[in-house]
Amino acid sequence: MTQGHRRPPLNKDTRVCISLAGRPSNIGTRFHNHLYEVLGLDFLYKAFTTTDIVAAIGGVRALGIRGCSVSMPFKEDVLSLVDEIEPSAQTLRSVNTIVNDDGRLTASNTDYLAVQHLVDDNGLSSEHSVLIRGSGGMASAVGAAFADRGFAGGTIVARNERAGRALSQRLGYEFLPDAGGPCARTADIIVNVTPIGMAGGAEERDLAFDDSAIRHARTVFDVVALPSETPLIAAARAAGVDVITGAQVIALQAAEQFERYTGVRPSAEQIAEASAISRA
Amino acid sequence: MTQGHRRPPLNKDTRVCISLAGRPSNIGTRFHNHLYEVLGLDFLYKAFTTTDIVAAIGGVRALGIRGCSVSMPFKEDVLSLVDEIEPSAQTLRSVNTIVNDDGRLTASNTDYLAVQHLVDDNGLSSEHSVLIRGSGGMASAVGAAFADRGFAGGTIVARNERAGRALSQRLGYEFLPDAGGPCARTADIIVNVTPIGMAGGAEERDLAFDDSAIRHARTVFDVVALPSETPLIAAARAAGVDVITGAQVIALQAAEQFERYTGVRPSAEQIAEASAISRA
Repeated sequence: MTQGHRRPPLNKDTRVCISLAGRPSNIGTRFHNHLYEVLGLDFLYKAFTTTDIVAAIGGVRALGIRGCSVSMPFKEDVLSLVDEIEPSAQTLRSVNTIVNDDGRLTASNTDYLAVQHLVDDNGLSSEHSVLIRGSGGMASAVGAAFADRGFAGGTIVARNERAGRALSQRLGYEFLPDAGGPCARTADIIVNVTPIGMAGGAEERDLAFDDSAIRHARTVFDVVALPSETPLIAAARAAGVDVITGAQVIALQAAEQFERYTGVRPSAEQIAEASAISRA
Repeated sequence: MTQGHRRPPLNKDTRVCISLAGRPSNIGTRFHNHLYEVLGLDFLYKAFTTTDIVAAIGGVRALGIRGCSVSMPFKEDVLSLVDEIEPSAQTLRSVNTIVNDDGRLTASNTDYLAVQHLVDDNGLSSEHSVLIRGSGGMASAVGAAFADRGFAGGTIVARNERAGRALSQRLGYEFLPDAGGPCARTADIIVNVTPIGMAGGAEERDLAFDDSAIRHARTVFDVVALPSETPLIAAARAAGVDVITGAQVIALQAAEQFERYTGVRPSAEQIAEASAISRA
């Protein structure tokens, strides 16, 4: 933490970025402030919550807050409050990033962009079959990222039949009701976008996919980020299957936000370090 | 700067105070953040400007920003945007401090309160005659502070005849047009609330009162804060006359804001140190 520049002391010209979430965490605040410090940028980042998203976004505009990360339950609400919506957010009807250029607000979805990066970086080919378990907002982002990269004829497995059918219809994917327990359905790329395996949840020790599905896969992708080594990721590693973790998604989407807010792209090492610190 | 506690690293629960000014300075940001550090308080303070005061105050409310210091040109505008107006701000129709208690905004004027403190602390008696040069917003605060402490029959000397007459009428004081140059009119307490003697101004080397007025006075009070040793203060000290400085007003009003925002009253030494650092 002592390498690199130190940022200047907080002053009137320090640029401010914030997050808005129903239940704020410290991850973004730690991630961004750590990188400001390392890179010597005169910025500060602070998590907020609100019960009035309209006035909060009005405040972002009026106070010249440079960037605003958006989490549940505000990701849809802010669509009507910005001046421009990038395709990433337009497709999903879901925003997680707002950039303020002198009062003009542009919305995007860096979750979607991060998944596309990971698809590219891990050499996943649209020849491969993809199966996604889950149908919430993040499952929509993951599904759209795959579909827009040419992955056709995938499968959605979901407990929520209405949301699952709607998502699979949007993507042109097959829908399968979720039978509960570890999913046995096979595909080249299997993706968990449910809370199964999440620390502190009722299913924290459970596997989203069973052993045969894991062994059959080319790549196991778990969007759960806490812990970064979920039971699914651990099982996939043990089986010698390539993995993509939720921690990678969070770090990449935050790096994408970071670049949009500051104009600076941190190195892969800096992102990894900031990500580790932010989750410590 | 190393004594005392260190505040915790910036996190999601850190409370935020801001200032809103047409032309922000670094003084408040340095003053408050220094004291948060010394006192180990989990707060941060940041100066902002805005072109939309309504949305900015809406943002203060929606983001749960704990305190908001208000400077020119917003001191009147915010009266209609808060839930409660304390007498200090009501009398003056001028606000410099907003405290946010869970979305309920209370406005006050700590300039007025600071001047009353200084009147009391310096043993000024309402038996003494008072003469105030100036008729702007700060002159109103100073005049009201004296009048409300029982100083009757004072005098206002002002270039702006309309504002000067209106102010003297409100206070029940005599009005005298400003003849320009050092004022020769005598009184026990003479107060400069014009830019005369202000660093960087056209009149930075000038005296608001002439030598005879200074020598005749019991107390010379200069509201100009930059520099803290104005020509008027220097001349008064040389003549052995008691002085009250603009730096004292700024420090006291900021300490009053600090206490309203945090619930903690810094010691006189801490205020003096923070004030010196904030002006360095």
